[in-house]
Amino acid sequence: MLPPAQQPIPNIPDSGLKKVVIVGGGFAGLKLARKLKSGPYQVILLDKNNYHQFQPLFYQVATAGLEPSAISFPLRKIFHNTPNTIFRMAEVHSFDSRMKRLYTEIGFIDYDYLVLAMGADTNYFGNKAIEYFSVPMKTVSEALYIRNKIISNYERAINIEKMDDRKSLMNVVIVGGGPTGVELAGAMADLRNNVFPKDYPELNFSNMKVVLIEAGPKLLAAMSAESQQHSLKYLNDLGVEVMLDTKVHDYDGETVKLERKDPIHTHTLLWAAGIKPNYIEGLGQEHYAPNGRIYVDEYNEILGENGIFVLGDVALLREENYPKGHPQVAQVALQQAENLGKNLLKVAEGKERKPFHYKDLGSMATVGRKRAVVDLPFMKFQGMMAWLTWLFVHLMAILGVKNKLFIFMDWAWNYLSFDPSLRLLIKPKYVRASERKELIEEK
Amino acid sequence: MLPPAQQPIPNIPDSGLKKVVIVGGGFAGLKLARKLKSGPYQVILLDKNNYHQFQPLFYQVATAGLEPSAISFPLRKIFHNTPNTIFRMAEVHSFDSRMKRLYTEIGFIDYDYLVLAMGADTNYFGNKAIEYFSVPMKTVSEALYIRNKIISNYERAINIEKMDDRKSLMNVVIVGGGPTGVELAGAMADLRNNVFPKDYPELNFSNMKVVLIEAGPKLLAAMSAESQQHSLKYLNDLGVEVMLDTKVHDYDGETVKLERKDPIHTHTLLWAAGIKPNYIEGLGQEHYAPNGRIYVDEYNEILGENGIFVLGDVALLREENYPKGHPQVAQVALQQAENLGKNLLKVAEGKERKPFHYKDLGSMATVGRKRAVVDLPFMKFQGMMAWLTWLFVHLMAILGVKNKLFIFMDWAWNYLSFDPSLRLLIKPKYVRASERKELIEEK
Repeated sequence: MLPPAQQPIPNIPDSGLKKVVIVGGGFAGLKLARKLKSGPYQVILLDKNNYHQFQPLFYQVATAGLEPSAISFPLRKIFHNTPNTIFRMAEVHSFDSRMKRLYTEIGFIDYDYLVLAMGADTNYFGNKAIEYFSVPMKTVSEALYIRNKIISNYERAINIEKMDDRKSLMNVVIVGGGPTGVELAGAMADLRNNVFPKDYPELNFSNMKVVLIEAGPKLLAAMSAESQQHSLKYLNDLGVEVMLDTKVHDYDGETVKLERKDPIHTHTLLWAAGIKPNYIEGLGQEHYAPNGRIYVDEYNEILGENGIFVLGDVALLREENYPKGHPQVAQVALQQAENLGKNLLKVAEGKERKPFHYKDLGSMATVGRKRAVVDLPFMKFQGMMAWLTWLFVHLMAILGVKNKLFIFMDWAWNYLSFDPSLRLLIKPKYVRASERKELIEEK
Repeated sequence: MLPPAQQPIPNIPDSGLKKVVIVGGGFAGLKLARKLKSGPYQVILLDKNNYHQFQPLFYQVATAGLEPSAISFPLRKIFHNTPNTIFRMAEVHSFDSRMKRLYTEIGFIDYDYLVLAMGADTNYFGNKAIEYFSVPMKTVSEALYIRNKIISNYERAINIEKMDDRKSLMNVVIVGGGPTGVELAGAMADLRNNVFPKDYPELNFSNMKVVLIEAGPKLLAAMSAESQQHSLKYLNDLGVEVMLDTKVHDYDGETVKLERKDPIHTHTLLWAAGIKPNYIEGLGQEHYAPNGRIYVDEYNEILGENGIFVLGDVALLREENYPKGHPQVAQVALQQAENLGKNLLKVAEGKERKPFHYKDLGSMATVGRKRAVVDLPFMKFQGMMAWLTWLFVHLMAILGVKNKLFIFMDWAWNYLSFDPSLRLLIKPKYVRASERKELIEEK
C-alpha cells in the first residue's frame, strides 16, 4: 500500500453540497451510493477495485462455470450521468474524526458524513501456517486463482508416473461448512464426476477426493435442520467426504493435519472457515467488539463520533432478536444501506430518522446441479424446485441486463452440456519488461 | 523455463500407432491435430498454454469488447472422445533429428513425424529500449495486460491536478500499420469517442491522442490501394493521428522519439510492428532464412531431415507467386495444415502426396464501428457492408457453438449500447502467500 498522500484528492468538483464519503463498493456501499444519487449530497465512493463484486457467485468462478466479468461490475459505468457521484479507485488508510478528514493513498478528503462499508476478509484465526499455504475466496481474483490452481494441478498430475504421488495434486479439501464451503464442495464434485474424466482420460478420478471439513457438528449452521440434513445428503450423493466436528490443526502445503483424525494429502486447501472485518485506523478501541466489528446504534451510527456510519459485515448493531449483532450476509448489508440512505435523505429534509430493523428474507444454498436448500420465513423446501428458486433469486440480484442475460445463458449452457467451458489457464503471465521485478533489480 | 526433463513424458498410452508430435496448438497445429484425429496415428499435441488462442480478435480483448475466454478454447475439450489424440501443456526445448526425439520440460518423446507449428512472437528488431518499455499483443495475456494498463492509466490520470501532466497517461501510441495496428487504433478511438468521457467525466478526452505510426508509406501494405485509402480515411474520421513514413527511434516509457519529427508523450506504446518465428534448437543454420523462418519443400517438409515438417508463420515455402514465402497469416497456416494432414493420411495408405498451393481467399480489416475494408479475389468493398462481412467471417471462424453465440451477443450488445462493458481491472492480484517471492525470500 502507498503511504497516505498529503494533499487533497484532486479534481473533485466543487458542488457546494454536503459530502458523503463511502469506503467500499460492496453490497452496502454501492446500494447507499445508488440510493443517494439524486439526493442533495455529493457522494464520493472509494474502492480499491474499479468494480463491484457479486460475492455469492465466486464459487462458480472458481469452478469454471462463470467468467469473472459476469459477476464484476465497473463502478464508473453504474454512475454514468450522475454528476454528484464521484468514484475513485484508492486504498483507504485512516481518518481523523475531529477534523472530519479521511486519508487515502491518492490524497485526503474532508467529509460531512463518513460511511465505513469496507466488508470483511478471510480469518485464519491466527494460524500462520494455514494463512501461508491455504487459498481463500473473498475476492474474484482469489476465485480465479483457485480455478487456475486446480487446472494446473491436473496438468502436473498427468505427468507423474506413480498414482500415489498424484493423489495430493488431485484431492481438494475445503474447510468451512457454511454456504461458501458447501457450494464450492458441490461444484467441485460435479467437475470431478462430469468434466475432469473427459479432460484427463489418462487420470483415474475415482482417486480424487473432495473433502469438506467443518469444526462444528452441522453444515449450514445458520439454516434450518431440514436444510442441514438435505445438504449433507446431497453432498454425500455427489461423493463429497463431509467431516463434521473436525478441526484443522496444521497444513504444510501438502498434508492437512487434523485433530484426532488421519491426515489428508492435498496441494489444495481452500479456506472458507471464517471472516474478519477490514480495519481502518481512526477509532478508539472502545468502539470495537472482540471480533473486530464496530458497535453502532440503531441508525448504524458510531456513538459519540460525529457523523460516522458503519454498514454490513463491519457493523455490530444489536437488536432484540440479534443480541450479538446481525449475520454477516448480503441481505443485512443491503437493508442497512437502504435504511441509512433513507435516513440521510430525511436528515436533509429536516425529518426524523428511522431506526434499523432487519427483516430476514430467508437463506439458501446450492449443492451441485439441480439441488439446493431454501429456508424462507414462511416455508422451507429442497431439491430441484429449490435449485430453480436459487437460480432465479441470484439472477435477479445480479446488476445489469447484460450480465443477467449472459449468466442465464452460461447457466443454461452448462446445465444442458454438463460442460462448463472455462477451463482456461489464462494467467496474467505477461508483465511489461520495465515492470518486471527481476529485470528492474538487474538494471 | 524448466530444463528439459531426462525421462520420457509419462502416461502416454501405448497405441502401437506411429507418433505424430505437433509443437504448438495455434491455427496450424490445431487444424492438423483435428485432421488426423481419426487417422492411423497417435497424435501428441504440445502447447505451453492449455488453450488455443484466436489471434484475430486480440484487439477486442485489449479494448474491453470481448473476454479472454470468448476467444480462447481449452485444447483438452476439443479432443474429448478422441483417444488417439493426447494433449500436454509443456514448453518445448529442442529435438534430436537423428534419434527422432523431442525434449520438453516434462520429458522427452520419440516421434515418427515431428511438426513444428510454434508460430511467431513480437519482433523489436533489436531495439532493447522499445522491448523494455513497450507492450506487445501476441497473446491473450498481453491483450488483457493492455486493457488493464489503459484503465489504470486513467485511474491515475484522474488524480493528477495539471492537465499537462495527465496527457502522457491518456495518450495511446500504436506502432505498426498492419491489420493489428489499424484495428487497435480504430477500437481505441471508439473508446475515446464514446466510452471514456462517460466513465471519467472529470477528464477532458479531447486531450487524448490516439496515434498510429507506420514506417512505410501506406497502411495495410498487403491489401489493395482501395483498402489502404479507405482505412486511412476511416481512421482520420475517428480522430486517429496517422503518421506514415515515420520511424520510432527510441522510447523511455514516457516519450516516444521519432526520426525527424516531434516526440510524443505517452505511457502506453503498443508495438505491433513486426513478428519473428519462435525458435527451437535442433536444426543446422543452413535451414534458416535470415528472418528466422525455416526453409521447407512443397510438402512443408524440411529437406534432408527425416520426417520433420514446418507449418504456418515458421515455414518458408517458396511457390511461383510467392518467391519469398507466403504471408504469415492464419489462412496460410490453416491451408498448410490441411494439406499436410491429407498427405499424412495418404502416406499411411501408401498413396502419393500432393504439393501445397496457397489459395488466397482475400483479407480484411475493421476500422472502428461499422466500417471495414475487404479485399476478395473477385471484388473489393468497404464500409458498412464490409464490416458485416468481417463480423460474419470471424464469427464463423470461431471454434464452438457456445463461443460463436456469446461473441455474437457481445457484439450485438456493444453495437447497440455503444458501451463495451468489460472495463474491469481484475488483476490476478492474488497469489497464495506460499508462492509470493518476497515472502519466500523472507523466510
